[in-house]
Amino acid sequence: MRVGILTSGGDCQGLNAAIRAVGKALYEKFEDDVAIFGIRDGYRGLMEGDYWEMSPRDFSGILTLGGTILGTSRQPFKEIRGPEGSQSEKVEQMKKNYKKLRLDCIVILGGNGTHKTANLLSGEGLNVITLPKTIDNDLWNTEMTFGFSSAVEIASMVIDSIHSTATSHGRVFIVELMGHKVGWLTLHAGIAGGADAILLPEIPYNIDSICRALQQRKRSGKQFSILAVAEGAISDKEAALSKKELKAQRAKMTEPSLSYRLAKEISERTGNEVRVTIPGHFQRGGSPCPYDRVLATRLGTAAAQMIQDRHFGCMMALQNQKIVPVPLGEVAGKLKAVPLDCEMIQSARDIGISFGD
Amino acid sequence: MRVGILTSGGDCQGLNAAIRAVGKALYEKFEDDVAIFGIRDGYRGLMEGDYWEMSPRDFSGILTLGGTILGTSRQPFKEIRGPEGSQSEKVEQMKKNYKKLRLDCIVILGGNGTHKTANLLSGEGLNVITLPKTIDNDLWNTEMTFGFSSAVEIASMVIDSIHSTATSHGRVFIVELMGHKVGWLTLHAGIAGGADAILLPEIPYNIDSICRALQQRKRSGKQFSILAVAEGAISDKEAALSKKELKAQRAKMTEPSLSYRLAKEISERTGNEVRVTIPGHFQRGGSPCPYDRVLATRLGTAAAQMIQDRHFGCMMALQNQKIVPVPLGEVAGKLKAVPLDCEMIQSARDIGISFGD
Amino acid sequence: MRVGILTSGGDCQGLNAAIRAVGKALYEKFEDDVAIFGIRDGYRGLMEGDYWEMSPRDFSGILTLGGTILGTSRQPFKEIRGPEGSQSEKVEQMKKNYKKLRLDCIVILGGNGTHKTANLLSGEGLNVITLPKTIDNDLWNTEMTFGFSSAVEIASMVIDSIHSTATSHGRVFIVELMGHKVGWLTLHAGIAGGADAILLPEIPYNIDSICRALQQRKRSGKQFSILAVAEGAISDKEAALSKKELKAQRAKMTEPSLSYRLAKEISERTGNEVRVTIPGHFQRGGSPCPYDRVLATRLGTAAAQMIQDRHFGCMMALQNQKIVPVPLGEVAGKLKAVPLDCEMIQSARDIGISFGD
Amino acid sequence: MRVGILTSGGDCQGLNAAIRAVGKALYEKFEDDVAIFGIRDGYRGLMEGDYWEMSPRDFSGILTLGGTILGTSRQPFKEIRGPEGSQSEKVEQMKKNYKKLRLDCIVILGGNGTHKTANLLSGEGLNVITLPKTIDNDLWNTEMTFGFSSAVEIASMVIDSIHSTATSHGRVFIVELMGHKVGWLTLHAGIAGGADAILLPEIPYNIDSICRALQQRKRSGKQFSILAVAEGAISDKEAALSKKELKAQRAKMTEPSLSYRLAKEISERTGNEVRVTIPGHFQRGGSPCPYDRVLATRLGTAAAQMIQDRHFGCMMALQNQKIVPVPLGEVAGKLKAVPLDCEMIQSARDIGISFGD
Repeated sequence: MRVGILTSGGDCQGLNAAIRAVGKALYEKFEDDVAIFGIRDGYRGLMEGDYWEMSPRDFSGILTLGGTILGTSRQPFKEIRGPEGSQSEKVEQMKKNYKKLRLDCIVILGGNGTHKTANLLSGEGLNVITLPKTIDNDLWNTEMTFGFSSAVEIASMVIDSIHSTATSHGRVFIVELMGHKVGWLTLHAGIAGGADAILLPEIPYNIDSICRALQQRKRSGKQFSILAVAEGAISDKEAALSKKELKAQRAKMTEPSLSYRLAKEISERTGNEVRVTIPGHFQRGGSPCPYDRVLATRLGTAAAQMIQDRHFGCMMALQNQKIVPVPLGEVAGKLKAVPLDCEMIQSARDIGISFGD
Repeated sequence: MRVGILTSGGDCQGLNAAIRAVGKALYEKFEDDVAIFGIRDGYRGLMEGDYWEMSPRDFSGILTLGGTILGTSRQPFKEIRGPEGSQSEKVEQMKKNYKKLRLDCIVILGGNGTHKTANLLSGEGLNVITLPKTIDNDLWNTEMTFGFSSAVEIASMVIDSIHSTATSHGRVFIVELMGHKVGWLTLHAGIAGGADAILLPEIPYNIDSICRALQQRKRSGKQFSILAVAEGAISDKEAALSKKELKAQRAKMTEPSLSYRLAKEISERTGNEVRVTIPGHFQRGGSPCPYDRVLATRLGTAAAQMIQDRHFGCMMALQNQKIVPVPLGEVAGKLKAVPLDCEMIQSARDIGISFGD
Repeated sequence: MRVGILTSGGDCQGLNAAIRAVGKALYEKFEDDVAIFGIRDGYRGLMEGDYWEMSPRDFSGILTLGGTILGTSRQPFKEIRGPEGSQSEKVEQMKKNYKKLRLDCIVILGGNGTHKTANLLSGEGLNVITLPKTIDNDLWNTEMTFGFSSAVEIASMVIDSIHSTATSHGRVFIVELMGHKVGWLTLHAGIAGGADAILLPEIPYNIDSICRALQQRKRSGKQFSILAVAEGAISDKEAALSKKELKAQRAKMTEPSLSYRLAKEISERTGNEVRVTIPGHFQRGGSPCPYDRVLATRLGTAAAQMIQDRHFGCMMALQNQKIVPVPLGEVAGKLKAVPLDCEMIQSARDIGISFGD
Repeated sequence: MRVGILTSGGDCQGLNAAIRAVGKALYEKFEDDVAIFGIRDGYRGLMEGDYWEMSPRDFSGILTLGGTILGTSRQPFKEIRGPEGSQSEKVEQMKKNYKKLRLDCIVILGGNGTHKTANLLSGEGLNVITLPKTIDNDLWNTEMTFGFSSAVEIASMVIDSIHSTATSHGRVFIVELMGHKVGWLTLHAGIAGGADAILLPEIPYNIDSICRALQQRKRSGKQFSILAVAEGAISDKEAALSKKELKAQRAKMTEPSLSYRLAKEISERTGNEVRVTIPGHFQRGGSPCPYDRVLATRLGTAAAQMIQDRHFGCMMALQNQKIVPVPLGEVAGKLKAVPLDCEMIQSARDIGISFGD
């Protein structure tokens, strides 16, 4: 049994825990009858044939390690250095190296972009099994991706910490969290951190509505407010624009970051001092939280089982507390956004959190 | 609308987050038309009429606070100081105070023991809504209780930390975790912390089997081993005894703590130096993790909704990612143990973790 | 004995621990014979007579609390809302309220700006004792200020976390830390976090020198580099300008933040992808670390002792492991910068850390 | 230049950070002209000639790693497995291997026991430089040892966490911390964690005095108390015994652990429920705190400088904020206990903390 493994896209917590689980479970199942190939820097390594044969030692002591021992690269058909050429040429390169390595299967750990390519490779006849990793938790057909809970912990800790400064100074604080297209991370961290307003890409905000919520808090005696804002949140005015108009408008902005623009608007309208915090890549680094370690381990051992069963072309997913395989075609290209009527949003509204709408 | 609220049993993380959610949601729903009574120290306060009328201020700033602002007491029909007498007399006292306060409903936060009494009070005609709190995660009909995830985080952190000492000294370490009857906490923390063996109350262990696993690790070049042990784990020999015999045997022991006995046995059989760590109450203290804050908030706001709907006699539960009401009769007196064939145990076995069986 | 207490300037960790120590020690010393007045929002409260008489309850349970229960405000002679007028009029207002409250002493917790005003008030005949608080550790005549160690812990954790992403992606990361004028925080966090280059306000950097250091790391097989950068670091070219020229040049910049400018320069010169992280106010929030709690407690109890001894006009300082009083005149207006020849810089250079010079 | 390096005694945080600093600084100073030999498991490896030649790679990525990559063993002249025989025979073995390896110097990281042997080896003509590591901070002639601050952080976190349970239940909690002979760790963690009583080996406690302090807290409305207790604390009655009598008395005890005995006594005398927590080896594991990383780095680079200067026979120490060499003879065999009249104890008393005396 010859198995390749690669991690693609932005790194997140739990990648090494998942790699470890795949490797350890394969050795338990096949003992000496398995060769595992670590492919370097995601699809780049597959295109360029950059890999090494891993040993049991490689999988030891990495459970709590952040990042990925395999390295990663983003967006396979854009940024990757390596063979020039069209997408189909790149796919051919990957197929060639898959065959050259005589792989029985390739395990791919990644998020939304990664799954498109994985599905494409599966369609080309490669045996592919994927694991859902992303701090965005935006993969369709799985209740949870690893990395998400760890990112929520960091984002919540930042909001917690800002609380003390906010309380002492009587200011408005904006904490800008990761999430270009979906707001799961901001929604969870916002509730967990006790934010007073939460702005999500899924719910266009109205600046007057936000300022009203802030003023109302002030009237009720609260000297400070904290806004948890997804980096991809948009205003109702922007939401009304066409994609082209939006792009044109954004190109003209001197301050491209949402939270700085928002800070300016709020400050001008309410007279409040507004401060911005952007934890950035800090959200995707460091040791995975225990939940992510357990989830990554379960997903990884389930992948090894699928390999033994020669059940390919699927993503391992969490559904109703169980790990199940989901056909790649039902995952690739779909985005799991926060439903507007979801119970968590209602719960947040019930305790007075504003969504700026 | 007059609502009482009490916390009963051992404290855990997330109690204040849940209390806050109930209170804030009730004020949002009923504004000035609600009076919330904080009942002190669990059922003791209800029996003795020890309470205060809470104000919005009481619910502010407690989201991240460990413990319970209401105080708690254990086992209502055993330890409680207060009116002497039989169980029925105590129940009468509670009914009397419920009526004296003219409550529309009482919200009770607790674990297994608490739910028996809550169900009993509900049967006596009181309007009861409960929230599932326990670090054991052993309540029937809910996928998760708050407190559990926070305890897993602390227990995992202790195992993580022991790892470095274990590696440096080449020893066997036993980390004894909470869990008299069920092993959820030990199972999760054991996997998350990278334990080499996990002993649960649900799976009687064989001492020879454990020692074999330790020796095998040594032969494969690993100088140390870590055992995550639930305080209620039992040996296969003990499991074969009647309750009476077991009790008699335990009464004779000079060292009542499982992990110290285990350490002695392993040390004698393998010649290894064995060290014991018992984090104890540290596991149930401190600030709730973000997951528990969100879960407690969702459960609390759902309870407020039930109060508005006058839907009583139920525990709010997490089922398939949603918060739903479950009749108290379907919860009380039942214990959610770890199923022997559950996927997590299989996953752990797949990466070589021994359960000592 | 009538004592006022106020906190001024940016908040930091340990303020409440210090307030608690002053209060508890005064009650222990004078029992019922002391009245403590909490003055709100720093010098603003002293100017406007905004205060409350504190009770023992106020000092309980705040040891681990971030921020300040007294509130704070920045720069007394610029931003404070309240009575208009010249500096001398403001000082008169403060003296008036001090007398109106019949204070025996006022305890002032603050950093560099705060000490100028404290010294001025002392010169006007007020009995002043100060405690050194700042995350910058830039107060003269004390080896350590509280807040600093906690900020170092947070900044180090951010760098730690960035490490995993940096390793996985093979990028250059800039972590911008607080410190406009001095680099203590960046120096400590940079060494503790294992940064590869550290840029301080005290050591003007040369962009070519930085890029050379990055390239050399790459040649030695290291795929990533982390730069810990104080927000006030300046280039050698800027250092050669007059203050006026520098101001003019900065006014023209489209990107005012140092780390974004630096990222652009490095990226253009080396072709590396460069990412920026700015933890911002996160560095001064949250619970104080144990070191700061102990230091704040020692400083607070020493202040109470000075009050009992009626020894005023001084800052409590840490010198050679002991808490000693230092005359305010020897502190105010002086800045403790990182000496270029200090042992820590030499130690950092010895392990290959570049200072960009 | 040929340098050996070993770590001896109980492991603690910061060992790898110090090893890294020594190694990196030696490579910076001597480039290819240095060979560093990692000696396994402390003095055992030196006796048995168990070592490997380290490479720059060995020193990379270990700054934040707990434990020691070199392994360690305790008490060289008692427990070490290996060549049987008298102390002098063992010393001869070590000298032989030192010479066989043609070492210019051996760097030894350890605590009190380690320094006796290091001094002995130095007396035998070996070139020895030591670094002070211990969570006890009990080494003479240095203000601080690495490992101590990290252990204080963990111990404080445990007390913090216990606070919430204690508050909720109205109980007495005993947290037993490491420290057989000295109380620095318990003193710092006790103050930082807000303990109500602190028992140290240096201050014999009187059980009636402790109970009085607890009762007085209760009368003042505090429902709970937390005792931070060093494992080596003794009662005034025990302190009055001769060593022989004390040993005889302890041999008769059914419960050898101080905190369980104390719990029983307090419970019997006051009627309070008392719970015990023993974090144990958790205190010396995990990643070093930033302070310890910086201290270990400074000590390690200073050791490399001493090697370059061929200044041997000394321990690197922190004195008055500077790293200085101290002759081994002035360190070995001396214990730095907490002075009864030290300012920290006075500070703790000033805020009402009882020392049980």
